[in-house]
Amino acid sequence: MAKELKELTPRSVDYSQWYQDLVIKADLAESSAVRGCMVIKPYGYAIWEKMQRQLDDMFKETGHSNAYFPLFIPKSFLSREADHVEGFAKECAVVTHYRLKTSPDGGVVVDPEARLEEELIVRPTSETIIWNTYKGWIQSWRDLPILCNQWANVVRWEMRTRLFLRTAEFLWQEGHTAHATQAEAEEEAMRMVNVYADFARNYMAVPVHVGVKSANERFAGAVETYTIEALMQDGKALQSGTSHFLGQNFAKAFDVTFTNKEGQQELVWATSWGVSTRLMGALIMSHSDDNGLVLPPKLAPYQVVIIPIYKSLEQRDEITRYIQPLLSELKSRGISVRYDDADNKKPGWKFSEYELKGVPVRLALGGRDMEQGTIEVARRDTLTKETLPYEGIADHVAQLLEDIQANIYQKALDYREQHTITVDSYEEFKEKIEEGGFILAHWDGTPETEEKIKAETKATIRCIPLLGDKTPGKCMVTGRPSAQRVLFARAY
Amino acid sequence: MAKELKELTPRSVDYSQWYQDLVIKADLAESSAVRGCMVIKPYGYAIWEKMQRQLDDMFKETGHSNAYFPLFIPKSFLSREADHVEGFAKECAVVTHYRLKTSPDGGVVVDPEARLEEELIVRPTSETIIWNTYKGWIQSWRDLPILCNQWANVVRWEMRTRLFLRTAEFLWQEGHTAHATQAEAEEEAMRMVNVYADFARNYMAVPVHVGVKSANERFAGAVETYTIEALMQDGKALQSGTSHFLGQNFAKAFDVTFTNKEGQQELVWATSWGVSTRLMGALIMSHSDDNGLVLPPKLAPYQVVIIPIYKSLEQRDEITRYIQPLLSELKSRGISVRYDDADNKKPGWKFSEYELKGVPVRLALGGRDMEQGTIEVARRDTLTKETLPYEGIADHVAQLLEDIQANIYQKALDYREQHTITVDSYEEFKEKIEEGGFILAHWDGTPETEEKIKAETKATIRCIPLLGDKTPGKCMVTGRPSAQRVLFARAY
Repeated sequence: MAKELKELTPRSVDYSQWYQDLVIKADLAESSAVRGCMVIKPYGYAIWEKMQRQLDDMFKETGHSNAYFPLFIPKSFLSREADHVEGFAKECAVVTHYRLKTSPDGGVVVDPEARLEEELIVRPTSETIIWNTYKGWIQSWRDLPILCNQWANVVRWEMRTRLFLRTAEFLWQEGHTAHATQAEAEEEAMRMVNVYADFARNYMAVPVHVGVKSANERFAGAVETYTIEALMQDGKALQSGTSHFLGQNFAKAFDVTFTNKEGQQELVWATSWGVSTRLMGALIMSHSDDNGLVLPPKLAPYQVVIIPIYKSLEQRDEITRYIQPLLSELKSRGISVRYDDADNKKPGWKFSEYELKGVPVRLALGGRDMEQGTIEVARRDTLTKETLPYEGIADHVAQLLEDIQANIYQKALDYREQHTITVDSYEEFKEKIEEGGFILAHWDGTPETEEKIKAETKATIRCIPLLGDKTPGKCMVTGRPSAQRVLFARAY
Repeated sequence: MAKELKELTPRSVDYSQWYQDLVIKADLAESSAVRGCMVIKPYGYAIWEKMQRQLDDMFKETGHSNAYFPLFIPKSFLSREADHVEGFAKECAVVTHYRLKTSPDGGVVVDPEARLEEELIVRPTSETIIWNTYKGWIQSWRDLPILCNQWANVVRWEMRTRLFLRTAEFLWQEGHTAHATQAEAEEEAMRMVNVYADFARNYMAVPVHVGVKSANERFAGAVETYTIEALMQDGKALQSGTSHFLGQNFAKAFDVTFTNKEGQQELVWATSWGVSTRLMGALIMSHSDDNGLVLPPKLAPYQVVIIPIYKSLEQRDEITRYIQPLLSELKSRGISVRYDDADNKKPGWKFSEYELKGVPVRLALGGRDMEQGTIEVARRDTLTKETLPYEGIADHVAQLLEDIQANIYQKALDYREQHTITVDSYEEFKEKIEEGGFILAHWDGTPETEEKIKAETKATIRCIPLLGDKTPGKCMVTGRPSAQRVLFARAY
């Protein structure tokens, strides 16, 4: 790949094209031959695997186990919960046949005799099939809680798709829990949205607001939806993870009851919660720049790359020997490091390649460095470099990775703070929303007002924040009472 | 669950029912509401996760990266490779529509206006969609090899299903590699079947034969299929993993060429290889007994369970305090241990529960043990127990886990050796095949003879072994020349 092929459309010219360029050129993902379905390439998948591993550890620490439920959902299951089917019916992939046959012209056709009695839906989410299963698992209060998670693919037939952000098929995890009491289920839903917030902040280095969704934006079938909301560099919000208190809606729909300690039958309480490969979009858009990806060290497939600068293969071998103790020391500290001594690419090419791929720290070392006991250290987040003593460099790198993790979080937080304003009049709101960013404003709590604002400004209520200013006021549109300011933005 | 509910049908009475009972009662999996699709329950999934983690490490050590390709395959892709479509057409789940709508009676129906222009097949395997993608990734020899793996669900519409062994949807990994030369691709296919054999022997404790499939049993679209074959306790063989040298078949079908070092265009060489949740069936049927699962320590979700025997809650707390240093010591050695002090179940119940679930080592400790400095140690594989000094018990347990791993492998190997015979006449073959087990016999290498044997005896050629006796001989059926003895069995 020649240098110019790596160049991205600058964000200031066309943010959307920049994103698309970056996802493709950094080898994260690409569109497939199947409408709306993506191929996640090895480098992109390596980041997703790091996310998965960390989230999975966090789920297990909070008492959850993984399980696996069927890809297919009988059509009749979906319609058992009225809001749920309403929310998903329009984007369902439907399996109607189970066999192909060869046609006289040598092609293959669907065998009309192999029609399913009941159509199967490729799961858009698994509440229905899981609650139908839980019915068999739950008899008494002793069987509760059930704390399951699954890592799976789901399909929602979206018409306008964008790599990672909105695809017909995506990868996600979905937690589904069953509880004896309302309080316990509410606590669980809250626990998990906070796990997501912790993960976003401390691993992805993405600051997020935690809040409750308004009724309009609630998950289809939920009583309450909690969300984490992040702000991208173009001033648009991205919903990054949701956790739902489902009340007894699915227990009712699938007749799941338990005998409580007093010997009475009660309906079971539920939650579900999920994050998806959409997080990849949040990660990319929060930190990256016109030179390429910027990855937080905690999720980078390689945290450090070392590039030898040599004039001959003999000198390369000399550097390779010289560098071995450093490689071992970095690895022994749990730092993932790649030594790239490939001879068919020049150092300059490698520099821009790893810049594009967002490797947090780049070390480069040539003959003179060996003589002088130095090494060049470049950091991806600030695009700065310096020459440092070789001795003690492992300590320096370890510290630098921590600094980078903290710095990119701070940078994203600063951006968000600079792009969050408080507005009191609807006139000002309509003007300011054009500039992007979060707007904290008063709202009367009605779906009608929310819909009017959305229709006129394309802004939605991202959430009713759980923390922060709780002062009541007056709705900017209707003047009616407002319990607290809510968070508006245009969103992905 | 009362004691009698845990009892399994003995293997000698009905092996197939024993298997079914065990899978259900040990909480490994169950059938779902969707025909042929299973639910993998948390305990079963925990074993699968251990398998995944280990295999994934082995794939990465051999240079592979994970990626993800679409769930759906356009119907026209499948037909590009003639043998491939022939092999899979009869068991394809077909998506024809992308939307539901509510009907006047309140139910949901498929929206006839939302019919796909081209039907999509839920992947039964991914060669076609992946080679269509690789076309865009490969221009020059510098782009090769490509060494990708994906962990995914696949669907093959099987009519007769059995939990783990044959299900309509199953989980698997599929490696798909692209190479510049035939030799390199052949080496890769061989490398991966040996990785599978290594995993089966050293982690699952399942002895396997490594060999080549006859043409009849080859993967649809492969030039050569390598396989690992295990023998279950009922004398039936189970194909446990396959690795395919695909030649240039998929490169031809999807027009994937590269410029070689001499500047000429050549077709790319391919392999694919996979193991699935079927391995769970192999694991269960290789070692388990009439009391329940027997798990190899390397794949057991808990390797050790500790059960306190107490007369009062005060005494329980005393044991709990007493046992803490042992728990820490076991954990610090990387031994997974569960301390079960639940008060709502009696020790006897717990003993049979963990026996059913195959926990390799059970420790039990009561008031008298604390006084006398002893502990009871039971091993699951031999169903034996002894009282040992408490001091130094962590060392003993660590060694015991190794012994159990080795012992259950040896036991399975002994069983296989006792059930492998050499036969020279077809008369003897027909008699002996009724007893189960592997039969090594001469075969003339023709599909016709193989089919005749299968039709008359239900036995198939499991593989042409790569190792072992290579002496030529005469086909037991036709008397024609045979290059070497091949391995016959009735199989799952």
